Amino acid sequence: MTNWSEIDRITKQWLKEAGERIRQSFSKQLQIATKANRNDLVTNIDQDTEQFFIERIRKTYPDHKILGEEGYGDEINGTNGVIWVIDPIDGTMNFVHMQRHFTISIGIFEDGKGKLAYIYDVTNDELYHAMNGKGAFYNEKQLPKFSEKLLCDCIVGLNAIWLTENRRIDYRILIPLVKSVRGTRSFGSAALEMAYVATGWMDAYISLRLSPWDFAAGMIIVEELGGKATKLNGEPLSILEKSSVFLARSDVHEQISEQFLSNYVENPMRDYRKKR
Amino acid sequence: MTNWSEIDRITKQWLKEAGERIRQSFSKQLQIATKANRNDLVTNIDQDTEQFFIERIRKTYPDHKILGEEGYGDEINGTNGVIWVIDPIDGTMNFVHMQRHFTISIGIFEDGKGKLAYIYDVTNDELYHAMNGKGAFYNEKQLPKFSEKLLCDCIVGLNAIWLTENRRIDYRILIPLVKSVRGTRSFGSAALEMAYVATGWMDAYISLRLSPWDFAAGMIIVEELGGKATKLNGEPLSILEKSSVFLARSDVHEQISEQFLSNYVENPMRDYRKKR
Repeated sequence: MTNWSEIDRITKQWLKEAGERIRQSFSKQLQIATKANRNDLVTNIDQDTEQFFIERIRKTYPDHKILGEEGYGDEINGTNGVIWVIDPIDGTMNFVHMQRHFTISIGIFEDGKGKLAYIYDVTNDELYHAMNGKGAFYNEKQLPKFSEKLLCDCIVGLNAIWLTENRRIDYRILIPLVKSVRGTRSFGSAALEMAYVATGWMDAYISLRLSPWDFAAGMIIVEELGGKATKLNGEPLSILEKSSVFLARSDVHEQISEQFLSNYVENPMRDYRKKR
Repeated sequence: MTNWSEIDRITKQWLKEAGERIRQSFSKQLQIATKANRNDLVTNIDQDTEQFFIERIRKTYPDHKILGEEGYGDEINGTNGVIWVIDPIDGTMNFVHMQRHFTISIGIFEDGKGKLAYIYDVTNDELYHAMNGKGAFYNEKQLPKFSEKLLCDCIVGLNAIWLTENRRIDYRILIPLVKSVRGTRSFGSAALEMAYVATGWMDAYISLRLSPWDFAAGMIIVEELGGKATKLNGEPLSILEKSSVFLARSDVHEQISEQFLSNYVENPMRDYRKKR
């Protein structure tokens, strides 16, 4: 049987170690490579951090599988067994431009079910995490389950780009939502914004294009608190595909779904399986 | 003659003290009052912090004038003499919802000219400041003057609300800008985002509706580094009126002005002089 407490303990240790390496590297020059998309910067530190985790996981848990953003993990074709879904640096643009507001994001699943999740704000040395059935935590302080909230009192994480013409959504769909809530924010790290929903600092987060490693941890943490994480059309998220992501405390999820998202149609996105 | 070094030293001391009071108050229940606008929350801490500064300034510099958001300052009808422009908590919504990502913002002017500026990120205990002619600093580390940058490499602070129909700007004006830059962010504190432009973490900041206390410090800091702070139509900002604000490193300011803002017409806004 999988010893989840042991995995929890060791993962936190690895996160602290990886975070310390990243903080130390800030003094060195970042060697920046560009991927196909100019917004999708990738650095040597990004790749090193993924390899840091993969080496340790393979040595400690040789039967576990790994799905990582940088592509050094395994070919994943199904959800059987234990799968680590890793984003070594979520918010790469922030990482490159600001050296802050980025996270290491790790979700661990067993037979498709979220078991452990970690969102680590490296610059601030702050950890948001969850253990299935045991609760969610901010720096080891237990987070309360979500209470109900009026939409007009909500802060929603949503980037301005989704209010311009784009391939993912008719931009007119989200405009009434933006005008109905108390305010919107865009911190530039999906995982960090999902952690902010978990703590109650924000109330919902919407993105039209995320990969499993972007949302895996946030989904587990928010669901552990009684929140909902789905595609914008309400369908369940899958760690086997890219999709839109809509994550919120559950009454807010319901209100936004009913009032603003009924006309949204999910477009199939490129499969994550294509390796670099 | 005004001793600016002395004022600099004492202001930093007051900021640390005020910040410590705010951090301690996080454990207490915030008594939240609502102003006319539901997005414009005001708390007892906001008011206490303004009074904290006003008491000290009046005692130490009885001939200085004070313009403060909470309205406990002076009636200001001209820019003669020394004027402190104070936002005791910039990013009040963040303050209430997150207890982070808000600042104390102070700009000090003499005969209309910016002399000293402070943006203090209370939660992180980080200070961004400038002294006219002496440079700008992040935690006492001197910031470099701005270098040139391509627009496609820029991150712009811009809230999604300005891409929806609103009273301040034809929302279609900003859409091509959002699509041309590397990315947009919205951290929810004008002063903090201006500080991020100063450090080079972001490259421009745009808002269609700010009061003098929101932009006074950011304007001084960014100009000290060779950047520009104007209304969206390029006209100079005034600490005597609310207006739009467009602040950027100077080549980026020029590029954005020419390519995207030539159709913008500034609407006169409500005068700040009306007291509560």
